[in-house]
Amino acid sequence: MVERPSAEFDERGTRERLLLAAERLIADEGVASVSMRRINVEAGARNLSAVHYHFGSLDNIIAAVFEYRMGAIDRRRRAMLDEVLAHRGDRLGVPDVLHVVVWPLAELMLSQSGNEHYVRFSAAVNRLPRFDSWQLVKPGHRRGLVRCYLLLRRMLSSVPRDVLHTRLMMELRALIYSLADVDAMIRHRHAAVRDPLVLFHASELVTRIGAALSAPVSESTLMARHVLAGSAHLERGSTFGADAMWSLPGRGTAPR
Amino acid sequence: MVERPSAEFDERGTRERLLLAAERLIADEGVASVSMRRINVEAGARNLSAVHYHFGSLDNIIAAVFEYRMGAIDRRRRAMLDEVLAHRGDRLGVPDVLHVVVWPLAELMLSQSGNEHYVRFSAAVNRLPRFDSWQLVKPGHRRGLVRCYLLLRRMLSSVPRDVLHTRLMMELRALIYSLADVDAMIRHRHAAVRDPLVLFHASELVTRIGAALSAPVSESTLMARHVLAGSAHLERGSTFGADAMWSLPGRGTAPR
Repeated sequence: MVERPSAEFDERGTRERLLLAAERLIADEGVASVSMRRINVEAGARNLSAVHYHFGSLDNIIAAVFEYRMGAIDRRRRAMLDEVLAHRGDRLGVPDVLHVVVWPLAELMLSQSGNEHYVRFSAAVNRLPRFDSWQLVKPGHRRGLVRCYLLLRRMLSSVPRDVLHTRLMMELRALIYSLADVDAMIRHRHAAVRDPLVLFHASELVTRIGAALSAPVSESTLMARHVLAGSAHLERGSTFGADAMWSLPGRGTAPR
Repeated sequence: MVERPSAEFDERGTRERLLLAAERLIADEGVASVSMRRINVEAGARNLSAVHYHFGSLDNIIAAVFEYRMGAIDRRRRAMLDEVLAHRGDRLGVPDVLHVVVWPLAELMLSQSGNEHYVRFSAAVNRLPRFDSWQLVKPGHRRGLVRCYLLLRRMLSSVPRDVLHTRLMMELRALIYSLADVDAMIRHRHAAVRDPLVLFHASELVTRIGAALSAPVSESTLMARHVLAGSAHLERGSTFGADAMWSLPGRGTAPR
């Protein structure tokens, strides 16, 4: 009766140490260089098969890291969104919504957050075509992002919906890559000014993404779009190749 | 007298096959997974030490791929710039200049270009902090890009110069990553509509980057900039951490 809670605690402790070790190794070295054995060693698991027992495969442990992080990030995002909606109401602007998209990721990079590997981990996984990182995020953990998406779509109704969808998907990927680059630059060369550099770059990303999403669509984009509209080769639900990331709300899965 | 030219030709042939094999392997699998031995095997070199003989190290072969590609890309970029300057003259706009930045990379991704691995190779190398990819590009191979940089700086003089420099450096990186993502999406899912998809995304990138560079600077960026301006921790020549990519023209190396 005394040992069971402690054994359970140990189990949870081991699982979490394995997750954090996988996140750190993949953030630093990429998915291809990391083996189950190294995750076990790095986590200091006494049982040599702990990582196999808890996760079974590298893909499973990657999915588990996303689940571990995205739950917390989504809660934070929804709370920030509720707050900004309460304060700004009808005066809500594109930068307000994008702040809610960017900041929960950027703040993981601040000094002593203890969560400093997630953004680089996420970039390493996102760039592998074999992972569909949207599939890795449970619907229950994208609720904040879906609310931001729908707000932006309403605010930016002058941009054709399919173009806007593709912009959002591409900018979300670019956001992860840029934050990961900023983190690597700071880590290697500017550790002493980490926090103001994170603030500077996060703030710039809000501005730059907002401008990119809102820009009028060019003639050459409209021409390429016209060619693609007549093509039988783009699957239904595909939006200019960016479909792997998220199905367009309204076709298929309806977001709340 | 008959054999020497042919032996020389073979030497050049082997070197080029090794370069292209390294480019393809790194594009597909990332730098960490690729060994000198695999490059040799992939290139079909009969001599087991051919790659060591020609390049000596993986870092040298990476530098040689950049040299091989960037010379041709820079010639193309300068020719396009001359042409657009002749046609547009004083009516030159930001999208005209960005088209010259984006297109020489995007056209390598078109069907049957035979150069389809370079953009993903470049993305794989750019994201490693141990490579300073600007150092890998010879000054003689950046002349087109420097001319574009200076034109954009003149056109976008309403953005503070240090912020604009950082935006350009970050957007150039994001451009490489986005094109690599587009290529991977097309390759895995939409090979039949490669060319219109490349046109669509290249055109969108010109629009989105132009809007991002031109956007008014926010209050929170100005505040973070103010904090950083007073810091002794950012080295001279550093611009918000983005200094590893290029030294700000005007301080130190003067571009033509």
